[in-house]
Formats: sequence, structure tokens, C-alpha cells
Amino acid sequence: MTQEMEYNYKLTIAYDGSHYLGWQVQHNGQTVQETIRKTLETIVQEKITLIGAGRTDTGVHAKGQVANFHFHKLLCLKKLIHSLNGMLPLDIRIARIEIVEQDFHAQFSAIGKIYHYHLWLDPIRDPIKRFYTFHVKSSIDRELLKRGAELFLGEKDFTSFANSANEGSASKGAVRHLKRLDLVSEEGGLRLEFEGNGFLYKMVRNIVGTLLEVACRKRPLDEIPQIFDAKDRRRAGKTAPPEGLFLMEVLYKLRSSKELK
Amino acid sequence: MTQEMEYNYKLTIAYDGSHYLGWQVQHNGQTVQETIRKTLETIVQEKITLIGAGRTDTGVHAKGQVANFHFHKLLCLKKLIHSLNGMLPLDIRIARIEIVEQDFHAQFSAIGKIYHYHLWLDPIRDPIKRFYTFHVKSSIDRELLKRGAELFLGEKDFTSFANSANEGSASKGAVRHLKRLDLVSEEGGLRLEFEGNGFLYKMVRNIVGTLLEVACRKRPLDEIPQIFDAKDRRRAGKTAPPEGLFLMEVLYKLRSSKELK
Repeated sequence: MTQEMEYNYKLTIAYDGSHYLGWQVQHNGQTVQETIRKTLETIVQEKITLIGAGRTDTGVHAKGQVANFHFHKLLCLKKLIHSLNGMLPLDIRIARIEIVEQDFHAQFSAIGKIYHYHLWLDPIRDPIKRFYTFHVKSSIDRELLKRGAELFLGEKDFTSFANSANEGSASKGAVRHLKRLDLVSEEGGLRLEFEGNGFLYKMVRNIVGTLLEVACRKRPLDEIPQIFDAKDRRRAGKTAPPEGLFLMEVLYKLRSSKELK
Repeated sequence: MTQEMEYNYKLTIAYDGSHYLGWQVQHNGQTVQETIRKTLETIVQEKITLIGAGRTDTGVHAKGQVANFHFHKLLCLKKLIHSLNGMLPLDIRIARIEIVEQDFHAQFSAIGKIYHYHLWLDPIRDPIKRFYTFHVKSSIDRELLKRGAELFLGEKDFTSFANSANEGSASKGAVRHLKRLDLVSEEGGLRLEFEGNGFLYKMVRNIVGTLLEVACRKRPLDEIPQIFDAKDRRRAGKTAPPEGLFLMEVLYKLRSSKELK
């Protein structure tokens, strides 16, 4: 390896999104991406382009966001993760840094994502969880929630569940494959686990909002196929709030060559 | 029951202590007790004296703090809990309100307390847990931690593990009975569960600080009995930080007559 070669660094990132305007925004404001990029630039003393796997909105959290950047020098990964976590605010942590193949691209190499959405169902919410769960105050029918969830599985056109400002819609359209939508009980309520080959803008939160209307009996179960057919965002339910949502993992085919935990 | 009779209301309270100067302080500043008392007074439109089971320090959390107040009117408990939670900030929740015996006193009727202290042991801390765990950066020997914990059990004079400003020390002295100190594995680390008939000022945090010095091999295990014998706070370890500490439950002999969950 020579000094002229480029190295491709992959970061796995966890953050509490409560105090950020999401991963990346057009408008001015503090974003997770900018916070990490500036810290990286302070460390390497050069300009860096940091590519994220996908945007998360204001208030959405991540346990496994992924980003990559190219840099011409070989950096000691152990020192780099230590410096980054030493300088970054405590609500952003770099969980892992690896050197990966030259053609790895955090967004375009992704073959899927896993999101969790946490519902707090007890009448009194644990104050510790107030920024990390959505407090559903109406009583819900878990059986209806489960049956509703099944209607979202498979390869479908999710136009009705996507807000506008959808990046990538021109190329791929709105067809996505939702491989898994599991309901898992947890303290105070349950979480919905989504795994798919891609997600449109606000798709998870729009599915959650629609499912909750079904589970609260505000909307019949058999409306779900009709909403899909309509291809009209206005037919689906409200967007569930951001605080319950976590980007858990970005899935890639490529394997990393060097890994540092 | 007549309108002249007094009713004794028992509150069970959960809070995120991050933004409060503890349950109750001498100095000016926002406390959990004052926040609840003022909200209660707004609801009942009269002055209230709110008695807490015990103080928690700045940054310490609670899942089962207890307080009581006497009031001459019979209030609808369901409405009261609804109004309180509607008006209180989301970092304080009233989990339960009951009408209890006239002589119930949140502090003096207590026969014990349960505290949990959460240790985050992985090198990278989950950002979501940054206000709710103590991040131990040195590697610890769990077996030493366990053996150290056993040396704190039983009825002992805890003078060496109490900071000054200890309320009640004049009457009861510093002898307390620590019935249980369990180590329980949890995501990212472990929690220490303390159950005792009473706890001196900063006693849990001083025990945790001392145990961690033992578990990090900064202090030999057999110093613990010597620290007890010395009856000198300066002999014990550092006070562990407040963010890992939760008051989980206050134990009473008395049973409540009416309960609302």
C-alpha cells in the first residue's frame, strides 16, 4: 500500500436523535451528519465527504446508521474511533470503524434496512422512555394489529405510504419488498420490527400510523388493500411521531476486510 | 364520611431526575417535590404539604418514589391522577394514587427501600442510556465485584459509606441492615440491586464507588472490612455518579385501602 492509494472508511453510528434535525437536512440546523463530518475534519485536518446510508428525520434515533468516507491516508482505526468518541457529543457514538472495499457506498451498496418502532401502551409512560417510545393512549387490539401487519408484507407499491420529498423514487418507483414486520412484546408495550429492501420517505411511520388506526378500530382492516390500490398518500393514516423510531441496521452484501470493535 | 374528615393521599412517582436538583433541596432551584406540590396546589386551590419518602440527589432517578399529603376533601382519584399527569412535565409521572390510613407517613412509615444502580461496561455506550447508566471505562472483574458485594450484606455501621448532611443519623445512628445486594446482567453491562431497611446519605453511590475500585483491582478486597471498622468516610472509595441510580421502591408494612392504577 502506498500513500497515494485511497482508503474507504465505513462507520457504524448510534445516536439519540432528540436534539438533531435528523441525519441530514437542506435547511440550516444541527444534523448528525454535519456533527460527525466536522469532527472528522478536525481530526484529519482535511475536507471530508461523509456519505450516509439514508436520512433519518428530526427526532428519529439510530443504533446502526452507516456512513462512509474516502481518505488518502491510512489511519489507525483504534485511534480514530477513540478520538471521534472523545470529541463527539455523548448523544452520538461511533460503534465501529472498518476499512472496506473501494466501491462500497453507504447508500447505494445497501440491500436492506431494519427499523424498530416502539409503542408504549400502558396509561402511564415511564418518564425515562418519553423520547424513545410513542405513547398510544387509546387501547389497542393486538390481534388486529397483527393481522393488519401481515397485509403489508411482500413486494408492493408503497406510494400511499410515502410522503413526498422521496429520494430515489424516480429510479426505483415506489415498489419495495417488506420482508418482515414482527410484533415483539417489551416493557410497557411492544415494538414493531421492519425489515425491507428499502423504505420510502416516512414509510415506516405512515405504516405505524395506519396500523394503529386499525388496531384502535378507527378504520376497518380490509381498508388496507384499498389504500395500497389507491396509490394516494391521503388515503392512509397519520404519520406516527418520530420518537418511537430507531434505524437498527443497514444491510450490505459486501463483507468488510478489517474490522475494529 | 363527612367533609370535615381528613384524607391521606399516597402518591407513587416515577421521574427522570436529569433536569432536577433532586427531590428536595435547601437552596433555590427546580426540584421534583416542588414541581408536584405546586401542580397539586393548582388543582385543589389550597396549600398542600407534600411529604416524601426520602431525598434523591441531583440527577438521580426514581421509578417508585413515594409521597403523601393530607387534604380535607375526598377527591376522585381517577380525575386527580389524570389532572396531575396532564399538567406535570413528561419527566415526572404519577404512577398511582391511593387513599391510605391517617397515620401513614411516606418517610417514617417506610420499613425499607430498593435501589438499582446501572453500570455500562462496554467500551462504547449506547447514547440512549447516557443519562441512565454510569459508564465504567476500566475493565472490571465480575467475580471480585460479586465477592466485594457480599462483604456489605447484613446489619453494619455504614459510617464510612455515608457523606455528611445525613438526615436521621442522630436518632438511628449509622447502623443499617443491607438485606440484598444482587448483581444482575443487563444489556451493555449490569445493575446492582440494593435492598435495605434504610440508606444513609449517598450510601449506595459510595458503596458502588468502593466496589468498582475493588473490581478494577485498584483496592484489595480485604480492605472492605477495614473501611467498615475505620468509621471514616475518607477511607472508602469515590462517590459513583448520580445518573446510574434509580429509587425503585419504598417498602411499607401498611396496606392501602383503596388503590387506583
